[in-house]
Amino acid sequence: MQKKDNALEKMRHSAAHLVAHAVKELFPKTILTLGPPTEHGFFYDILPEKNLKEADISIIEKKMHEIAARNLTLTHEQVPKMQARELYKNNPFKLELIDSIPGDTVGIARQGDFYDLCKGGHVENTSQIKHFKLLHLSGSYWRADRDGQALQRITGTAFLTAKDMRLWQERQEEAQKYDHRRLGKELDLFSFHSEGVGFPFFHAKGTLILNIMRSHLRKVLKKIGYQEICTPTMLNDDLWKQSGHYDHYKKNMYFCEIEKESYAVKPMNCPGAILLYKERPRSYRELPLRLSEFGMVHRYELSGVLHGLFRVRAFTVDDGHIFCTPEQLDQEILTDVKTILMVLKTFGFENVDIKLATKPKEAMGTDQLWDKATNALKNALETVGCNYTIAEGDGAFYGPKLEYHIQDSMGRSWQCSTTQVDFFQPERFDLSYISSSGNKECPVIIHRAIYGSFERFFGILLEHYKGNLPFWLCPIQVKMLTITDEHKPYAQNIANQLSQHGLRVIMDKSSDPISGQIKAAQIAKIPWMLIIGNKEVENDTIALRTRDGKQQFGLTIDKLLKISSESQ
Amino acid sequence: MQKKDNALEKMRHSAAHLVAHAVKELFPKTILTLGPPTEHGFFYDILPEKNLKEADISIIEKKMHEIAARNLTLTHEQVPKMQARELYKNNPFKLELIDSIPGDTVGIARQGDFYDLCKGGHVENTSQIKHFKLLHLSGSYWRADRDGQALQRITGTAFLTAKDMRLWQERQEEAQKYDHRRLGKELDLFSFHSEGVGFPFFHAKGTLILNIMRSHLRKVLKKIGYQEICTPTMLNDDLWKQSGHYDHYKKNMYFCEIEKESYAVKPMNCPGAILLYKERPRSYRELPLRLSEFGMVHRYELSGVLHGLFRVRAFTVDDGHIFCTPEQLDQEILTDVKTILMVLKTFGFENVDIKLATKPKEAMGTDQLWDKATNALKNALETVGCNYTIAEGDGAFYGPKLEYHIQDSMGRSWQCSTTQVDFFQPERFDLSYISSSGNKECPVIIHRAIYGSFERFFGILLEHYKGNLPFWLCPIQVKMLTITDEHKPYAQNIANQLSQHGLRVIMDKSSDPISGQIKAAQIAKIPWMLIIGNKEVENDTIALRTRDGKQQFGLTIDKLLKISSESQ
Repeated sequence: MQKKDNALEKMRHSAAHLVAHAVKELFPKTILTLGPPTEHGFFYDILPEKNLKEADISIIEKKMHEIAARNLTLTHEQVPKMQARELYKNNPFKLELIDSIPGDTVGIARQGDFYDLCKGGHVENTSQIKHFKLLHLSGSYWRADRDGQALQRITGTAFLTAKDMRLWQERQEEAQKYDHRRLGKELDLFSFHSEGVGFPFFHAKGTLILNIMRSHLRKVLKKIGYQEICTPTMLNDDLWKQSGHYDHYKKNMYFCEIEKESYAVKPMNCPGAILLYKERPRSYRELPLRLSEFGMVHRYELSGVLHGLFRVRAFTVDDGHIFCTPEQLDQEILTDVKTILMVLKTFGFENVDIKLATKPKEAMGTDQLWDKATNALKNALETVGCNYTIAEGDGAFYGPKLEYHIQDSMGRSWQCSTTQVDFFQPERFDLSYISSSGNKECPVIIHRAIYGSFERFFGILLEHYKGNLPFWLCPIQVKMLTITDEHKPYAQNIANQLSQHGLRVIMDKSSDPISGQIKAAQIAKIPWMLIIGNKEVENDTIALRTRDGKQQFGLTIDKLLKISSESQ
Repeated sequence: MQKKDNALEKMRHSAAHLVAHAVKELFPKTILTLGPPTEHGFFYDILPEKNLKEADISIIEKKMHEIAARNLTLTHEQVPKMQARELYKNNPFKLELIDSIPGDTVGIARQGDFYDLCKGGHVENTSQIKHFKLLHLSGSYWRADRDGQALQRITGTAFLTAKDMRLWQERQEEAQKYDHRRLGKELDLFSFHSEGVGFPFFHAKGTLILNIMRSHLRKVLKKIGYQEICTPTMLNDDLWKQSGHYDHYKKNMYFCEIEKESYAVKPMNCPGAILLYKERPRSYRELPLRLSEFGMVHRYELSGVLHGLFRVRAFTVDDGHIFCTPEQLDQEILTDVKTILMVLKTFGFENVDIKLATKPKEAMGTDQLWDKATNALKNALETVGCNYTIAEGDGAFYGPKLEYHIQDSMGRSWQCSTTQVDFFQPERFDLSYISSSGNKECPVIIHRAIYGSFERFFGILLEHYKGNLPFWLCPIQVKMLTITDEHKPYAQNIANQLSQHGLRVIMDKSSDPISGQIKAAQIAKIPWMLIIGNKEVENDTIALRTRDGKQQFGLTIDKLLKISSESQ
């Protein structure tokens, strides 16, 4: 997570005003709605007189530079609402915003003859806004409500210095080069098809990587006492009403009818695990009960926001549900935090920023329980000794949580893992266990995910490693190359032996010159090329060329296996 | 598959007449519809004056015995349709049947004053019908059409001899004792919940068994060059229209709407694999392309026919799709038949009856292609040397197939595996590959499944093994029992060592007497109990007691591991 940078935020906020100013000069009948700064830049949502086209972007950008060069001073004043309403008498969006602001006055920012409803926080003069770029046009809705007015969004970014802007541009180019959608196609890992918009199709190599990711987690979770379960994909509306998803999440759910009863395709795995917990009476002796499920969930997303594996309409969550007593929270959370950090480290994510979100104003559960859970989270972080910040009041109403933000090799931040304490579902589903003193007590649930979504994590890994997945994750680890076809039987024999030891090996079956064979293996980003020529056959050895071009000659199978086990 | 037994079929057909006769005498206003013999007995579908209740079954059965004792001769004659229509002027169902029979006459069977529309095939006298039993009442529909008239079905069975009937009864009792639904509950493997009717919830031990079944297949399929893929759960209606499922299977599919487009939750995995094949141009060099998918499919079933894991509304198919040239059919089918028989044998199913279903009257594809495929199937069966019968004309319109019927330990027959050649989908989806001579050719698809449905096969295994799953399939293989608590540290140490070698071991944490610990392990059907007492600790040995009560003393860890690897 990026730390709040006030100067940068002011710059981006000012750039948002500038884009609105430019649009109003170019297309005076445009109706402005909202234009905030964001983590990566800014946007402005407008109701255009006539829909803007991609080609308009450069015209607007040019006009922005022109206005900036006018050296206009930015001012900000509080004006009575009556006056603001008069200013915006023809803009229903701003009128709605004015009404929703508490108090009798609202802020108005001005630069030249342009004004905008605004809380404040700008640079002083338009001439300071130099390093910006408009990125794209997209569709949006007023107040993000799909039933609301359709709008157009202009998205851009801005920086404080030319250097920051250049750095960003370089990273953009790099990110584009290693875009996981591009790598997915180049490495034959997955595809998307119009017959299932937003639903990935995993090819053999992609499926293998997902399976390896899954086996890895299974091994980790087995050691700490998790039990894997498997619950249905469809469950009836009564259940989703009881869990609260129906009320709060209905718009993102898919529904089917079965014998006149409505069923939802599950958007979350929790209710399944909860029903399984409730299947029979539970004793304190069974707690903590750690249930894991690799459960595929389906969630509706606007087609406009779908983005490769990063944003899909169906994904597999590595869900964990720990049912425990309040007394067990400390130990369970500590184990959980350690496990999450360990798994993230396995993928090279050592730099993890953790956010601890605490009790919000509206919350359920006693103060005592909140304190207990929040302290358990805090203690675990202190014990492990990792970076964390407290997001006061940012917790869900049903319990505090940890969000883990990793940083990839291109400096981008991603949130994948979560540890969420939950007092709400146990009560809502009337969960219980019989305590050692024979009383009926209510357990606490810890929901946690490490990868979060297998699909999204896979996409992040692809970009993070720039396609060069670590040896143990590679669908093909070794490719046998031969100087001539005469060397193929020897190579095949080596391949068989390595396969028997569990390595994933293929033969280059072509008769291409060795340089061509090497090139093909490099394009496929295969970590090991084993090259066989006369010398190797004569001496009963193997030559190893790694993906990064390093070579070792005269290796034996045993030596190779030793190196490979160190790479696993 | 049971061989057609004409005498038994006649007996059951006569028993069906007898039940109709009894119902008409007891409830004269009942309207009769259809009452055929079946593989396991017979049924009669009626439109009752007033719905029959379970309690009426014994009354009807008593009346059947009474009528049988009247020594009525059964006769059968062809009568003009006019005359038959007059007989059935108040029975719209029989009138519909009469109209659907070709020719000018129909058969009428008579016994005493009872008559029934009938093709013939009976015993000679009612007194021969002695060994029968009515089993249950259920709901059905006229012509099995859910939109048709709702009827009541009386199901029963009948045998030629008292001995056959007794044998059947014994098997029934045994089957009831080892009903997988009962075992599933007793062994904590799975459960069903009203929130998802027909959708199984797999508990930790059940999930583990499914995972072992899956790993086993993965290992087998890897060796013969399969590549595992993973395609979406929801795909749009256009696809299902193209595949033909929409026209022929719509009533069994679940539909959701996404952005005003209708999607189906997949009832089959084939279209996903086909889209993946079509993802890029294919060369003959890539064929045969063997794609496997463990794909969960959802199919609507009437709630009345759901039955534990045997008939569910969602299940995982171990689907295989082989895309090959017509020339490759022989080799691919041979490998396939061998693999299926080998896997079935692993589970103790050595006795497999195979049915080869050949070209029906209405078929697509050239005679040449049909001959080629049918011969490939036949040759494979001959080469392997297994029992098979030819079901002339029983193939699907799109290709011939093999059905594998296994026999379980209680003598019941189940069809799980299938090998289906398909000329239709490749054409429908316009699939192609570039042949070695550079021409665009159409591949053939072989659809094959070994388990068929993981869930159903799991249920069959549970009953087949009467809950005593083989060692390698057991979720818990070993339980450590101790004479006193003092022996627990030693036992724990053994447990750790065995776990490190991949065995699934738990400790009995109780302080119960050893007899109680043994009983608990036996109820859980754990194959190995390792019992630790003074003697074992002193001599650094282990005592093994197996599920069937056999004991071995003075074993070392190494010896145990050796025995276990022989049991794997």
